[in-house]
Amino acid sequence: MAAAPLKVCIVGSGNWGSAVAKIIGNNVKKLQKFASTVKMWVFEETVNGRKLTDIINNDHENVKYLPGHKLPENVVAVSNLSEAVQDADLLVFVIPHQFIHKICDEITGRVPKKALGITLIKGIDEGPEGLKLISDIIREKMGIDISVLMGANIASEVAAEKFCETTIGSKVMENGLLFKELLQTPNFRITVVDDADTVELCGALKVSSMRQANATPSMAGLNVERQSSATSSMAGLTLIASPVVFLIQENIVAVGAGFCDGLRCGDNTKAAVIRLGLMEMIAFARIFCKGQVSTATFLESCGVADLITTCYGGRNRRVAEAFARTGKTIEELEKEMLNGQKLQGPQTSAEVYRILKQKGLLDKFPLFTAVYQICYEGRPVSEMLSCLQSHPEHI
Amino acid sequence: MAAAPLKVCIVGSGNWGSAVAKIIGNNVKKLQKFASTVKMWVFEETVNGRKLTDIINNDHENVKYLPGHKLPENVVAVSNLSEAVQDADLLVFVIPHQFIHKICDEITGRVPKKALGITLIKGIDEGPEGLKLISDIIREKMGIDISVLMGANIASEVAAEKFCETTIGSKVMENGLLFKELLQTPNFRITVVDDADTVELCGALKVSSMRQANATPSMAGLNVERQSSATSSMAGLTLIASPVVFLIQENIVAVGAGFCDGLRCGDNTKAAVIRLGLMEMIAFARIFCKGQVSTATFLESCGVADLITTCYGGRNRRVAEAFARTGKTIEELEKEMLNGQKLQGPQTSAEVYRILKQKGLLDKFPLFTAVYQICYEGRPVSEMLSCLQSHPEHI
Repeated sequence: MAAAPLKVCIVGSGNWGSAVAKIIGNNVKKLQKFASTVKMWVFEETVNGRKLTDIINNDHENVKYLPGHKLPENVVAVSNLSEAVQDADLLVFVIPHQFIHKICDEITGRVPKKALGITLIKGIDEGPEGLKLISDIIREKMGIDISVLMGANIASEVAAEKFCETTIGSKVMENGLLFKELLQTPNFRITVVDDADTVELCGALKVSSMRQANATPSMAGLNVERQSSATSSMAGLTLIASPVVFLIQENIVAVGAGFCDGLRCGDNTKAAVIRLGLMEMIAFARIFCKGQVSTATFLESCGVADLITTCYGGRNRRVAEAFARTGKTIEELEKEMLNGQKLQGPQTSAEVYRILKQKGLLDKFPLFTAVYQICYEGRPVSEMLSCLQSHPEHI
Repeated sequence: MAAAPLKVCIVGSGNWGSAVAKIIGNNVKKLQKFASTVKMWVFEETVNGRKLTDIINNDHENVKYLPGHKLPENVVAVSNLSEAVQDADLLVFVIPHQFIHKICDEITGRVPKKALGITLIKGIDEGPEGLKLISDIIREKMGIDISVLMGANIASEVAAEKFCETTIGSKVMENGLLFKELLQTPNFRITVVDDADTVELCGALKVSSMRQANATPSMAGLNVERQSSATSSMAGLTLIASPVVFLIQENIVAVGAGFCDGLRCGDNTKAAVIRLGLMEMIAFARIFCKGQVSTATFLESCGVADLITTCYGGRNRRVAEAFARTGKTIEELEKEMLNGQKLQGPQTSAEVYRILKQKGLLDKFPLFTAVYQICYEGRPVSEMLSCLQSHPEHI
């Protein structure tokens, strides 16, 4: 007797969740291993007078979060969370990070323990004992094995079937390979590695390209997906007390790179600043997150590529260059160059500075520290490079 | 009784050799561990009617290869190679790659076996049994331990004391740390790793930023330092039969990135192409060079940073973009955009294609192969991405 086909439930239906639903819906039709109907939990809302679940189930399009892309007809929108996850063998978590505690609490006990999960959620939980991975929260609350998927993936490009790569991290490789079968397409190419923690950290520390497409910088300066600004108003779901934060250290590094440009440093100097920034990101991950952090994983799709492009393009770099050239304050430049929007790099540097200071670790992170002091404490930008001369990387 | 101070000889006096001589000359004055006089072997030539050694020893400036930078007075130019290396405890090799066989043959037996060497030479030897590292040639011929130093280092910027990083690879960490003492300054920051082979390969496969400053693309399309076009006319030193080549695969990847731009791919697709190119560079190194190749070492200064900048700037990218947009041939574009100069990426792709075909390995390198076929065999540029759909990285 063949094994029963595996039932898939997608928990979440935003921009990224809908793009992934398109892939999964098409893939399960071709693979007997998976049940042919895929449930997708949709937070019910009204769009143009109709329920979003009705629109998805009748028109097969998430007109609110992924307009212009048809979803396969075998993807069924379900507004009741318990009903959606019931009997699922495979759970794909793709909700805004703020709601992970609440969602897990709601579905724990309704999903068999032998179910396998994969999280596509970017972010990291800041609790009293340090930072905590989203996958660890799910694993601890639900008692299931959980993989992660992170990459340089813009939802709309993935939905449009543009060629791109992503990384699955799975402590149990067999489970990672199963999710690869579920998710890989000719244009969405997946590498599976066993270093799941680092893969997830890459997503949390960089937040990848999704930021550019979907950021809503108005929310207290933190990058959140577009979906979250909608769902933050959910009736039953309120923001948890322990804030889940993105520590987009990539933006701090981009500010450092912009200072280099403003100081008219050479290419080598800028490359050094960017690389030292990356090393601080890795060191930060090693100190604040339990589990091993493998340097090599930073070369996977989830890793370094975005960092460097942000340091050559991007508005953090651009404003920081102007800061170094003009001597104006960050606030003045935000008004002039960003229409008053807050620049993420300096704010994240303040957040990271606070965490590092509390732990007495400022001297281990000279670039992060220098960026903060230059942005907010009047330290001359010309001192940035001398700050790096005793970097722990070279001792 | 204190150990006798270590005598240093710099074998080579081009652009990079002179920049390093400036550092070493200043450092040995401060550290009793090293003898206070540093010998620098200079291939004698006449500059404005004077011998180059006389100019260096009297005016303390290498006016031909590093004009505008004073060398410390304790750096003594010596035109006789045997005399220069005699009694040296530490040898710093910084000559054009073509001459390494000849130089080693000439000095072997004149240097104590307990001497330690470090090579700053970029390139790789192509012999009948595959590729061979320069350090292996030195080690085998001379029987000494040899470290390597590679990084994103433009000689003139290093000489101007701009902040930058570099990597020393040393199979015997103690020796690498000794060379770090000799070479590190507040603005030339060194990380030592034990994965010497990968560090050297990074230098050979990328040739780093030095290319931009000193390339003489006229020499059969291979990147060589400016110095080598001068020294290739040395009377006693002729090019060896077995060609020492740079396989600047970075330029092939940049062509692929340019095709992406021409095809108006998204950022994610381009990031995927760049990363797959990097993975092919690493795979190539693993197959063709004995010894271990560590992925993590590609995150050191010797590693990945330059690749990505080349793929976002650089003329290989630019011409490849025009190739995809206009449908003109590479030759036509070289005439129009580069004044007839040869573009390095396509040529290197041909060289690499030849090596891969000979070994029956084309299917393991779909990006390298596609770039070659598109440039030279009329394959449509639109097929590049479908070529990558069965990349070994995702199987």
